[in-house]
Amino acid sequence: MRKAGRHFLQIPGPSAVPDRILSAIGQQTIDHRGPDFAKVGLRALNGLKTIFKTEENVFIYPASGTGAWEAALVNTLSPGDRVLMFETGHFATLWKKLAEKLGLQAEFIEGDWRGGADPEKIEAYLAEDKEHQIKAVCVVHNETSTGSVSPIAEVRKAIDRANHPALFMVDTISGLASLDYRHDEWGVDVTVSGSQKGLMLPPGLSFNAASAKALAANKTAKLQRSYWDWAEMVGPNKNGYFPYTPATNLLYGLNEAVDMLHEEGLDNVFARHARHGAAARAAVRAWGLEVLCATQGQESGVLTAVKLPEGHSADAFRATTLEHYDISLGNGLSKVAEKVFRIGHLGDFNDLMLVATLAGVEMGLKQANVPHETGGVQAAMAQLS
Amino acid sequence: MRKAGRHFLQIPGPSAVPDRILSAIGQQTIDHRGPDFAKVGLRALNGLKTIFKTEENVFIYPASGTGAWEAALVNTLSPGDRVLMFETGHFATLWKKLAEKLGLQAEFIEGDWRGGADPEKIEAYLAEDKEHQIKAVCVVHNETSTGSVSPIAEVRKAIDRANHPALFMVDTISGLASLDYRHDEWGVDVTVSGSQKGLMLPPGLSFNAASAKALAANKTAKLQRSYWDWAEMVGPNKNGYFPYTPATNLLYGLNEAVDMLHEEGLDNVFARHARHGAAARAAVRAWGLEVLCATQGQESGVLTAVKLPEGHSADAFRATTLEHYDISLGNGLSKVAEKVFRIGHLGDFNDLMLVATLAGVEMGLKQANVPHETGGVQAAMAQLS
Amino acid sequence: MRKAGRHFLQIPGPSAVPDRILSAIGQQTIDHRGPDFAKVGLRALNGLKTIFKTEENVFIYPASGTGAWEAALVNTLSPGDRVLMFETGHFATLWKKLAEKLGLQAEFIEGDWRGGADPEKIEAYLAEDKEHQIKAVCVVHNETSTGSVSPIAEVRKAIDRANHPALFMVDTISGLASLDYRHDEWGVDVTVSGSQKGLMLPPGLSFNAASAKALAANKTAKLQRSYWDWAEMVGPNKNGYFPYTPATNLLYGLNEAVDMLHEEGLDNVFARHARHGAAARAAVRAWGLEVLCATQGQESGVLTAVKLPEGHSADAFRATTLEHYDISLGNGLSKVAEKVFRIGHLGDFNDLMLVATLAGVEMGLKQANVPHETGGVQAAMAQLS
Amino acid sequence: MRKAGRHFLQIPGPSAVPDRILSAIGQQTIDHRGPDFAKVGLRALNGLKTIFKTEENVFIYPASGTGAWEAALVNTLSPGDRVLMFETGHFATLWKKLAEKLGLQAEFIEGDWRGGADPEKIEAYLAEDKEHQIKAVCVVHNETSTGSVSPIAEVRKAIDRANHPALFMVDTISGLASLDYRHDEWGVDVTVSGSQKGLMLPPGLSFNAASAKALAANKTAKLQRSYWDWAEMVGPNKNGYFPYTPATNLLYGLNEAVDMLHEEGLDNVFARHARHGAAARAAVRAWGLEVLCATQGQESGVLTAVKLPEGHSADAFRATTLEHYDISLGNGLSKVAEKVFRIGHLGDFNDLMLVATLAGVEMGLKQANVPHETGGVQAAMAQLS
Repeated sequence: MRKAGRHFLQIPGPSAVPDRILSAIGQQTIDHRGPDFAKVGLRALNGLKTIFKTEENVFIYPASGTGAWEAALVNTLSPGDRVLMFETGHFATLWKKLAEKLGLQAEFIEGDWRGGADPEKIEAYLAEDKEHQIKAVCVVHNETSTGSVSPIAEVRKAIDRANHPALFMVDTISGLASLDYRHDEWGVDVTVSGSQKGLMLPPGLSFNAASAKALAANKTAKLQRSYWDWAEMVGPNKNGYFPYTPATNLLYGLNEAVDMLHEEGLDNVFARHARHGAAARAAVRAWGLEVLCATQGQESGVLTAVKLPEGHSADAFRATTLEHYDISLGNGLSKVAEKVFRIGHLGDFNDLMLVATLAGVEMGLKQANVPHETGGVQAAMAQLS
Repeated sequence: MRKAGRHFLQIPGPSAVPDRILSAIGQQTIDHRGPDFAKVGLRALNGLKTIFKTEENVFIYPASGTGAWEAALVNTLSPGDRVLMFETGHFATLWKKLAEKLGLQAEFIEGDWRGGADPEKIEAYLAEDKEHQIKAVCVVHNETSTGSVSPIAEVRKAIDRANHPALFMVDTISGLASLDYRHDEWGVDVTVSGSQKGLMLPPGLSFNAASAKALAANKTAKLQRSYWDWAEMVGPNKNGYFPYTPATNLLYGLNEAVDMLHEEGLDNVFARHARHGAAARAAVRAWGLEVLCATQGQESGVLTAVKLPEGHSADAFRATTLEHYDISLGNGLSKVAEKVFRIGHLGDFNDLMLVATLAGVEMGLKQANVPHETGGVQAAMAQLS
Repeated sequence: MRKAGRHFLQIPGPSAVPDRILSAIGQQTIDHRGPDFAKVGLRALNGLKTIFKTEENVFIYPASGTGAWEAALVNTLSPGDRVLMFETGHFATLWKKLAEKLGLQAEFIEGDWRGGADPEKIEAYLAEDKEHQIKAVCVVHNETSTGSVSPIAEVRKAIDRANHPALFMVDTISGLASLDYRHDEWGVDVTVSGSQKGLMLPPGLSFNAASAKALAANKTAKLQRSYWDWAEMVGPNKNGYFPYTPATNLLYGLNEAVDMLHEEGLDNVFARHARHGAAARAAVRAWGLEVLCATQGQESGVLTAVKLPEGHSADAFRATTLEHYDISLGNGLSKVAEKVFRIGHLGDFNDLMLVATLAGVEMGLKQANVPHETGGVQAAMAQLS
Repeated sequence: MRKAGRHFLQIPGPSAVPDRILSAIGQQTIDHRGPDFAKVGLRALNGLKTIFKTEENVFIYPASGTGAWEAALVNTLSPGDRVLMFETGHFATLWKKLAEKLGLQAEFIEGDWRGGADPEKIEAYLAEDKEHQIKAVCVVHNETSTGSVSPIAEVRKAIDRANHPALFMVDTISGLASLDYRHDEWGVDVTVSGSQKGLMLPPGLSFNAASAKALAANKTAKLQRSYWDWAEMVGPNKNGYFPYTPATNLLYGLNEAVDMLHEEGLDNVFARHARHGAAARAAVRAWGLEVLCATQGQESGVLTAVKLPEGHSADAFRATTLEHYDISLGNGLSKVAEKVFRIGHLGDFNDLMLVATLAGVEMGLKQANVPHETGGVQAAMAQLS
């Protein structure tokens, strides 16, 4: 039986794609070596720089975000290099596993999954590394599994205080274009991101922004690479071209997305996400439930992970909301599997959509017999209006 | 500045068009005299019959609903004919004016705009017409200006009790495919409808369903007609063609719409609209406001017209909700201009979209300083879950 | 079995709709009474004026071209009025029948279907009408059934030479935006056109452009009208609105179409059609076949009607080309049924598409065993390059 | 100035994307971990098997074809492994360079770029390798730079005759779904392909089909890999999921493409490409020019590379055709740069589109003052009809 009305895709990415972008993606493919393509390519490469806030290089891969994680590492490091990572949650853990798989020696500062990376611990760790064997510090900006945000500018200062030359790499796959981000100002060497979150595109594109220091590292880095190699891209990119066939139609969408973000204004986009995060947390509190992120000031505007009361399955709850209210919520991952569900409130989103989303959760809690107070939606509305 | 997220188009039509239909409409136009078109045309004509619940003729016009109103009259009546109409609201009044403009003698049973047509009054009126000078009884099924529903089956019985031979004409422009409707079973002679309401299409198509009795009347009716003439359509329609160039791309959309309605099941569609109407009224009551329709059992599942407290401008309120919450609500028309606003909850719509809509109203009432109780959204959610 | 590749829709309208327009039409419908709509409506109304080359009123109907024919007559004439028409072909004949059906006294200057209207005959006819009983002269600009063009500016001069006050009405349904047309400069009182030809839209919109004289006639004209009545439109149109629900999504397409025409430049559009007409005729001559239009200088750039040798069925030939080469050609209508086929070369069209079209004809002639010389395509290419 | 009509994208891939696929790609993105996605994923994975003609594993990457080249090698080989490749043209050369970049010892059997791989030379080379140090034989099926086809079934027999255990890898990026291909029957271990050629999709997806033997090799292969690792995919793929976020919207398009290919019938698709290749070569001969592929029976149905007379720049010619006839042709690559141009006649293509394409070339030759005979188009038409 057909379900009427719009599905609410409220996982923390992919976010629902706006019609303008779907329409852009549906335009006819053109010759990726022809003169018209150069305009598309340059617009994409230059447009992305305004989003990463960088005047350095941005690289676009026809690939998922996982590919851009790999690209960041293989372009700059050599087998056996030590890499410092911070356990903010599931995705930080996956990035560490990937590093290990590539032959790096990845070291974790453990975390409790309830906040962002801790600059002080990073500083302390680096301070121990007198011989500068650690070649990179890798931090997840917006940890999609927990809804916590790492203070990237502070981590940069911590590295500087430790006087450590390690490259600074940040995954803002789910943060970019939703949360304030400043590749250059914050002194990030490699930023990793993807298309299907704040950029409002379908999945299929991912990105590296790379500082001059990172590009220099590329020249000596010995990890095996070909598809991901920045060195092959720099030349063709200058004229808007790519060393292999780019994902043309997704680039159309990317260009539309960058326009849309600037039409709203990046600061407005960030404020909107912050406001929605606050309203979502007000709802969670009103329900008498707990937000996974327990570190004040580090709660994400992109998603809110919510702990269910003991003895209740978050996945059963999610199945109920999907069936009854046609809304997709994010699941709990690894350590918090079945214990939390995640509400995505990112991308092309507004107040009424947030209320609808929270109503789906509140009515779902009732439907699934999860103990809770009513009034979450009302609390969010009070916050919004 | 770009507004993020989806606009909520909550006027009582056009309703928001689902992606499947937009995609269908965006397909390439074909030769309207070629063999492939016959399939498109037959599918549209036969599909519509399942929606009107008729085995008689259905006519499709490239025109707005106003055109189909005119078609119903010019196809069956002659200059000076007396026509009985019932003042359910603004649209009944417009139809009467149209009849007068065409040279008919239209007579109104007055109404207070707070309910549907009254079968007993119609019976009494007809009973007076011993000489059967009244040639047609015209009733609006779902009065879009008030949110009241006329009891069509009861009106039929009233005509029959009066033993009156007048043609029975019903405007269900905003009722069809949202409210139960049965052209054949209810003995309607001409049903008028349009594309942009329950059928979920953009405006641009309108329809007549016509009984054998209506088609017989066409042969002697003397009102001037050409574009609207059923007689020119019957022949070509048999093979799926039209006497003049049809609006091919809207027909693509119509065929998709009929499929979607049957995938959901017409009875489910009707139940959904009824449920949403009830939840909307629960919200209005919780706000301490008044629903315009005051006749129990005749409240519409398509829209809810809400009276604002004296001294408050409904249009100012609507402008506020549009600006702050990106939601379009319907305005009050003629007699109730500025006094009521209308909430559309029709077409491709679901529970969470309704909550969002009601949240837009509730937050808008606050924003516009209209005195009200909070809790309308909560009341609707209680009703829905 | 699926046919690969693009269908060639080479009937003389609807013409193949370009992707930009399909994409525009597929955008979400908006509130036709809201502030955003005013921009859409004004852009459409003002845009059309640049295409009709008029600073007077343009009216947009959600209707086929047949509706706009009717609108031109009912808005300006009264029952029994004499109307002079010129038999350029099938569509002129249909317009005459429509006039008669509306109760007008339509008089034909007979023609042989092999050229446009003859200004001298019109002048002579009018000169006989000393009492000015003839209220309108109606001429088809581009006769879609024959591929002949009437010299509109010359007809105007003929009316003037006869010192006759009749309204001058022109059907340029298939000429507008393909052939030069100047409503104001040529002193036309009512111009009739439609969306699905040079404007490159799907069918569903039609137009009247009306002079001040025509608007004045509207005030006294007694033909019954409501849907078509200009008087109801003038007011709302001033602000970009319409008296009844407009076909919003087709208006999106119209606005895109007008942009596209100006991006190419109207004069370039006209030159392109002229060039393609000449190349098509070169092909016909090379095949040893005959072009239906026999009047030099009046051959259409929109379509070319081709006579098949005696004893060969044009419809059988068209069925063969459709089956074997996936190309739709236009059929012969009424007097020339089965005797001619029509090649549409209008709308969003270019040199290579024309060669493909002519190749479809040439290979079809071979396939259908119609006696002909090869070399038509080659002749057209010589003309084009 | 806007160019009217359709652009002809006649490079040998990306091929023009049919509307059905663009429309599919433009549908809303869904939850890649939700129940509805499983249907999309399984349909894609199983659908592709019918195109590769394999009952073994198929892997789908959000990546360009270059990525799938890399995947084939890193999944099955170890650093320093010897790999035998055949120099069919530019793309075989690129694949070799990629292998070297990955640390493999790639060895070339040289070729003259005028035919496919020579099975006898491969057999002889392998026969020399008594110790079976060669771990893989890599052949390009349809060499996109030359328009020559390698006899894959014969290469398989050659390897077997040499009794050599090397893995057999085939790049059919531009051959799949245009030319007959049989992964299982021809005993291929790894087949590499991409989305933007015979599959009629935009670029952005690439594929590996892998035999049981290849999967076994994966377990011991030591080349560094993560994104490309089949081992991570096998499990999730069983249920229609992927280990990282897939390119959902391109998968929608892939599913549509597979349906379309089967609606036409794969054998009909192959016959159509063969017929178009033959017609294109007939045109080239009639122009008095030379086809680059000089090996009878190995000419491609996907593209035709054409040598320009000495002293004429192929790129200048291509720029002329693009400017004057809005057609994109492929350029000559590396060894044949400036000497040849390539006509793509692949994907969603039909007879009239081929004639248009060849007309673009013929009129371009005239425009660019390249000495040639006219009559190429006529020769192709004779072949086609």
